[in-house]
Amino acid sequence: MTSFMYTTSVPVFKQMLNALRAILEKTEAHAAAKNIDPAVLLQSRLFPDMFPLLRQVQIAADFAKGISARLAGVDVPSHEDNEQSIADLQARLATTLAFIDSLDAAQFEGSEARDVILRPGTPKEKKLVGQAYLVNYGLPQFFFHVTTAYAILRHNGVEVGKRDYMGEF
Amino acid sequence: MTSFMYTTSVPVFKQMLNALRAILEKTEAHAAAKNIDPAVLLQSRLFPDMFPLLRQVQIAADFAKGISARLAGVDVPSHEDNEQSIADLQARLATTLAFIDSLDAAQFEGSEARDVILRPGTPKEKKLVGQAYLVNYGLPQFFFHVTTAYAILRHNGVEVGKRDYMGEF
Repeated sequence: MTSFMYTTSVPVFKQMLNALRAILEKTEAHAAAKNIDPAVLLQSRLFPDMFPLLRQVQIAADFAKGISARLAGVDVPSHEDNEQSIADLQARLATTLAFIDSLDAAQFEGSEARDVILRPGTPKEKKLVGQAYLVNYGLPQFFFHVTTAYAILRHNGVEVGKRDYMGEF
Repeated sequence: MTSFMYTTSVPVFKQMLNALRAILEKTEAHAAAKNIDPAVLLQSRLFPDMFPLLRQVQIAADFAKGISARLAGVDVPSHEDNEQSIADLQARLATTLAFIDSLDAAQFEGSEARDVILRPGTPKEKKLVGQAYLVNYGLPQFFFHVTTAYAILRHNGVEVGKRDYMGEF
């Protein structure tokens, strides 16, 4: 049987990031139809000290990439945060999806018991066993940023619904 | 070893719902300090056709209850949606937490391979195997409503942060 650590990470990230790609496509079409500068949406936030849409998407991609890499036991690839347009974000998501898709389920075997160090070498360093890292830390973080990206778009009138958020599964 | 189906559901729901309880406590204090009628916050929403805070909390509790019950193979307890105040929501969350806490990890053994029927007897009926039901359907739904509740409060200026959302783990 495929490792539960794999089926609870990579396929879930793929489902949600592909859904986010489709939502960003609808966002681009919405902006064009309503004469809205997409940059306005990308810089929208729900409160002044929260991250804007663009950063929410970057962080969601980073969690998908980082969690998958750490559980698979490979180096986390570095993706520069230089996106400025919806097309740039689509490319970032495509790169992230290609990376996590390149990982093999077998690499996740036993990862539930392997330690993961968060923020190594900093005062906030925290050691978690792989299973807790995935379900108590990683998934709550990942879904937070995917949902907040969706919430920013809904708040700005982009016509997407729960089915868009859920994606294909 | 404890069933992965258990550790990926009940403890995660407990973490997030306890966090939500603490967030609602801070919300009550914030409303009192700023002379805000808590009912205004409970009826706040990010867009007119989205659910308000009160309903987001009810639905988050329902997913925690329903997913846990179905995986454990017990009847889903019925909780009436009659909450009107923050205190009512705290009681609803406490009832939900007591229920999921009453389930034993052993009841989740093998649930990854058991079928779960969503919306039985309706045109939208869908059969999922337990594992997909939890990670591809249940968790995305649960986190959606917890995060949206948080987002509504942040949008309304309640001073909570990511650490409040994440809870204790």
